[in-house]
Amino acid sequence: MNLKPLGDRVIIKADEAETTTASGLYIASEAKEKPTTGVVLAVGDGKLDKDGKHLPMPVKVGDKVIYGKFGGTEVTVDGEDVLILRADDLYAVFA
Amino acid sequence: MNLKPLGDRVIIKADEAETTTASGLYIASEAKEKPTTGVVLAVGDGKLDKDGKHLPMPVKVGDKVIYGKFGGTEVTVDGEDVLILRADDLYAVFA
Amino acid sequence: MNLKPLGDRVIIKADEAETTTASGLYIASEAKEKPTTGVVLAVGDGKLDKDGKHLPMPVKVGDKVIYGKFGGTEVTVDGEDVLILRADDLYAVFA
Amino acid sequence: MNLKPLGDRVIIKADEAETTTASGLYIASEAKEKPTTGVVLAVGDGKLDKDGKHLPMPVKVGDKVIYGKFGGTEVTVDGEDVLILRADDLYAVFA
Amino acid sequence: MNLKPLGDRVIIKADEAETTTASGLYIASEAKEKPTTGVVLAVGDGKLDKDGKHLPMPVKVGDKVIYGKFGGTEVTVDGEDVLILRADDLYAVFA
Amino acid sequence: MNLKPLGDRVIIKADEAETTTASGLYIASEAKEKPTTGVVLAVGDGKLDKDGKHLPMPVKVGDKVIYGKFGGTEVTVDGEDVLILRADDLYAVFA
Amino acid sequence: MNLKPLGDRVIIKADEAETTTASGLYIASEAKEKPTTGVVLAVGDGKLDKDGKHLPMPVKVGDKVIYGKFGGTEVTVDGEDVLILRADDLYAVFA
Repeated sequence: MNLKPLGDRVIIKADEAETTTASGLYIASEAKEKPTTGVVLAVGDGKLDKDGKHLPMPVKVGDKVIYGKFGGTEVTVDGEDVLILRADDLYAVFA
Repeated sequence: MNLKPLGDRVIIKADEAETTTASGLYIASEAKEKPTTGVVLAVGDGKLDKDGKHLPMPVKVGDKVIYGKFGGTEVTVDGEDVLILRADDLYAVFA
Repeated sequence: MNLKPLGDRVIIKADEAETTTASGLYIASEAKEKPTTGVVLAVGDGKLDKDGKHLPMPVKVGDKVIYGKFGGTEVTVDGEDVLILRADDLYAVFA
Repeated sequence: MNLKPLGDRVIIKADEAETTTASGLYIASEAKEKPTTGVVLAVGDGKLDKDGKHLPMPVKVGDKVIYGKFGGTEVTVDGEDVLILRADDLYAVFA
Repeated sequence: MNLKPLGDRVIIKADEAETTTASGLYIASEAKEKPTTGVVLAVGDGKLDKDGKHLPMPVKVGDKVIYGKFGGTEVTVDGEDVLILRADDLYAVFA
Repeated sequence: MNLKPLGDRVIIKADEAETTTASGLYIASEAKEKPTTGVVLAVGDGKLDKDGKHLPMPVKVGDKVIYGKFGGTEVTVDGEDVLILRADDLYAVFA
Repeated sequence: MNLKPLGDRVIIKADEAETTTASGLYIASEAKEKPTTGVVLAVGDGKLDKDGKHLPMPVKVGDKVIYGKFGGTEVTVDGEDVLILRADDLYAVFA
């Protein structure tokens, strides 16, 4: 991806929500549960501390993460819907 | 658990709410009191201080804790409902 | 008490509210004035400063204190109702 | 007074509001203007700075002060109504 | 004035609002525009910095100042109406 | 101007709003668009840092600036309407 | 551009919103989607740290950026509509 998040932001590709239930019933897109897991596509340099140095970022490209449902801004880049959010809105990373 | 909380967050498995009262009456799940005690499943590295070092976390895996009823985010990991919350939302630990 | 408050929190056992008035009239529990004095049962290690050291706590176990009416969280531990609140919600201590 | 305020708090005994006007008319207690001057009965050790030292308090016991009308918490100690408030809610001291 | 403001506060005597308009019409007191200029009567020692030292105050006794219309607290001292406000609510000083 | 702004404030003389449109139509003063450009008339010494030193101000007397429409306080000094606002409410300066 | 943003602000020229849809239908300007990408026209010196030094800015003139839809202030300079916003309202930069 040729898009670099700024500051302590990351770019996330949300996981596809399941479109079939356990019973095999198809769910229309309006009813799909908003996903809260995704994969990190890009990572910013980190927040600046008072001396102008970057604080370390807690995740790296490729990490699978859980993030806040209402955090971030959805943007469409090269026809792909991604989410830009701050590292602090990431709750956990799959090890 | 293969899920690592980020920053000063912990992952908690809430205790089961009592499903029988002292008189033995079964209480349906809608009426169950929301538990506020639980066990720590995973602990983040701690909040970053201004120098990029992690501040120590007050609990460790396996600790039984009391936490704020409305704190945190419920997530389902591997079919298990857990709670991700910040260490500051933990009120006390059983010694 | 086997419960240790975290950070700058303390555990308080509220004083019993008076159940008889000066005129000797019994007051039902619904009408009892919420007590604002109590005894300190347990004390946290103190808030972390920027260097990861604990700041001193202003009270010790056994102190009788005045605290904010709406501060804190009520929990029941071993059948006993206690209050967990932050040291900053303690207003004064009886010398 | 055997009550010690905590942190940057002070205990104030509010001045009696005037109960007669210039014209000698008695004013019932409901109509009395809430006093905003009082005398300092007790002084806390001061707020902790980042190194765990107490910052100096701006008033001492016996000082007559002007304070914010809506600041503080009223408590009754040994049958006496006093006010506990933070030093920052004190506006001025009579020299 | 025997009243010393605390912290970064100053005591201001508001200028009299004009009671006659350019056309000589008298304006009743209810209609008088609230003055926003005044004279500094007393100056506090300044806000405490983290080391317990006082930061310098930007005005001195006798300065004529412009201040925020809604800032401060009106008090009556020795029959004189004055205003206690924080130095930061002073906008400018006449040189 | 004999008026010195305090702290990080500046005094601005707003540019006259255009009173004729491109078509030559006169616009009554009620309909005039509020100007957001102006000239700096006076500059404060700057905000105090924690050591009591003044931080540098980003503009100087005579600079033409763009500022926030709703920022600042309008005052009339020597019959001239000027605006006192904080340096942070200045958006840009014409080079 | 002869306009220099102050502090941590940048000046952005928003990209033109598409005025034809995929089906070739013309969209009137009222219905155009507000653009959230643009080009950096000018960059401020950066926010002052506590020592009066400027923190580095994350973008440079000519960078194409994604920014918050509701961030910033629209101004018209030399007949050109541009946006002044803070660097923190920039989400990402195209590499």
